[in-house]
Amino acid sequence: MPDPSIAGVETLRWRDGRIEMIDQRLLPGRIDYPGYDSAAGVAEAIRSMVIRGAPAIGCAAAYGIAVEAIRLSKMSGQDFQKGMDLAFEVLAASRPTAVNLFWALDRMRRLLDKLRAEGKSVRDIAALLLEEAHAVTAQDIAINRKIGEFGAALLPDGARVLTHCNAGALATAGHGTALGVIRSAFAAGKSIRVYADETRPFLQGARLTAWELVQEKIPVTLITDNMAGHLMRRGEVDAVVVGTDRVAANGDVANKIGTYMVAVLARRHRIPFYVACPLSTIDLNIDDGGRIPIEERSDSEVRGFGGVEWAPAGVQIRNPAFDVTPADLVTALITEKGAVMSPGRAAIAALFEPD
Amino acid sequence: MPDPSIAGVETLRWRDGRIEMIDQRLLPGRIDYPGYDSAAGVAEAIRSMVIRGAPAIGCAAAYGIAVEAIRLSKMSGQDFQKGMDLAFEVLAASRPTAVNLFWALDRMRRLLDKLRAEGKSVRDIAALLLEEAHAVTAQDIAINRKIGEFGAALLPDGARVLTHCNAGALATAGHGTALGVIRSAFAAGKSIRVYADETRPFLQGARLTAWELVQEKIPVTLITDNMAGHLMRRGEVDAVVVGTDRVAANGDVANKIGTYMVAVLARRHRIPFYVACPLSTIDLNIDDGGRIPIEERSDSEVRGFGGVEWAPAGVQIRNPAFDVTPADLVTALITEKGAVMSPGRAAIAALFEPD
Repeated sequence: MPDPSIAGVETLRWRDGRIEMIDQRLLPGRIDYPGYDSAAGVAEAIRSMVIRGAPAIGCAAAYGIAVEAIRLSKMSGQDFQKGMDLAFEVLAASRPTAVNLFWALDRMRRLLDKLRAEGKSVRDIAALLLEEAHAVTAQDIAINRKIGEFGAALLPDGARVLTHCNAGALATAGHGTALGVIRSAFAAGKSIRVYADETRPFLQGARLTAWELVQEKIPVTLITDNMAGHLMRRGEVDAVVVGTDRVAANGDVANKIGTYMVAVLARRHRIPFYVACPLSTIDLNIDDGGRIPIEERSDSEVRGFGGVEWAPAGVQIRNPAFDVTPADLVTALITEKGAVMSPGRAAIAALFEPD
Repeated sequence: MPDPSIAGVETLRWRDGRIEMIDQRLLPGRIDYPGYDSAAGVAEAIRSMVIRGAPAIGCAAAYGIAVEAIRLSKMSGQDFQKGMDLAFEVLAASRPTAVNLFWALDRMRRLLDKLRAEGKSVRDIAALLLEEAHAVTAQDIAINRKIGEFGAALLPDGARVLTHCNAGALATAGHGTALGVIRSAFAAGKSIRVYADETRPFLQGARLTAWELVQEKIPVTLITDNMAGHLMRRGEVDAVVVGTDRVAANGDVANKIGTYMVAVLARRHRIPFYVACPLSTIDLNIDDGGRIPIEERSDSEVRGFGGVEWAPAGVQIRNPAFDVTPADLVTALITEKGAVMSPGRAAIAALFEPD
């Protein structure tokens, strides 16, 4: 599943019976593809952020189930089922906020249950789960291209677009959601310039977004997270486009910590604030953003980066990895079914009605 | 001029005919006191941020003039004057935004002109300029203690106070402006907890503010700059207190990049936003914040920190060091003459009328 838009770089790839993922902790300094052949290994890769980004986590989880099925495919039906139940548990516990993880696991679980009910052999089940993981991944790219087209129509020629964190090819199976919008607009011949927030503490904006855009020669300027307001106040930002890890039924948006601040500033400066969002990221079971679980990660991420520590000994640290932007600050959700302006409960529910 | 509130740590100290400054680029990992005996040396220390913080820069500039006068004190009157003219120029060119630099240089210039007019010897002039630098520094501490008292009265017992950058003892001759308010409230027996924004790219919040507060056992929690909005939305912040590098005649406030974002968020959440501000930081010659020069610093500060680089090759970078918060977002300016609520032109002008 190579993404043709980043020459030579794939987020996930299937090689020699293992799912390989580019180690995003090492970018942009080093390109390394560790491979995984168990659910526990994939879960640890998700937890430790070898792979991150809501749609990419979904793909990884699907492969986590597939490789575990392959690993267990010499077992009896009962032992296989026990092992698979454990695999679902281990993967579900890897990260709490991005709903795509649970969406992908549900999809794999439904298929597994169906195949078991049909009396398929363990070996056949494993092969079909792998096909399903490939399908999840291929569909993700196709969906991102649709999001890109719908979103590109919203960006005027010459737009200076601010993005936060990385909702790029590296956050997905390819093309990206927020960066997919930017890529599609650029590919359509629009002159687009991007401001990338560096996105402390994990620096996805600096290390991943800026790197992706430099690779493709889309003009990008890196800023620290605290500069966005200054640039908006000076009239240097025309639109904001971000991704999301989970959207509640009322349109509240969970995304990387700092997104809420950008949304508040965009509103003050009357700058449109767009959220690129595959339907798999919308969680109709969550009534509003206040109920989305917000992951708190390790202190060590805030203490420094890359082996350099700058926090003094003895200081307390908070490290919420996400925040919630209320729906009223969102100009539009950009989905594979089109852009939903001023998203609310009814418009979101309508996205899930049969065409 | 030791600051009794940080045991053993002084921002500036006079030793063996040189002005020594704690090298703030190395904190909190290492305590080092390089010494300076020329205006050019002090100017470079200011430019490279060995010393930073508007009031501390003012003190350093005063000493820069004093050490240059001592250095040139064996010259003829004419050569001395030429050398001193150059010293004023070199120091004035070190950093553009903090007005305290120019305030201190004006003060030293007026004294020099007066002493020359009185026919004082070069040697006497040098001695009197040094006395004046000592006086600037001692007055700064006294002023900060007054600001601290006025500000402490505004913080309720149990307040959770967010601050951005470092307006602490290290940004002044001692006690601090914004942290002076916090110190004074704490010393008065109030239970105060502080959130310190880490303040990219130079990390003054993590390296200096958190360190100062840990030293004094004032409870402090370090966060990245993009977390403040999340905490405010959850009701975990009761007040914001920051320092400033220059306040315009209309009350607009220039301060460390990111301050504007905090002010916008504080307004949205109806949290008071206080600016601790000695009168020497108010520039009546600047009509509004749009006219305050905003320093853009080197790309290298944004590329990484402490020898680790995370920005990809080829990315463009912006690095504005300050931003402007409009007066209408400021709940009060806290000065040594008291707190000015909802500061505007008339109230600010009144601060400069004789008592």
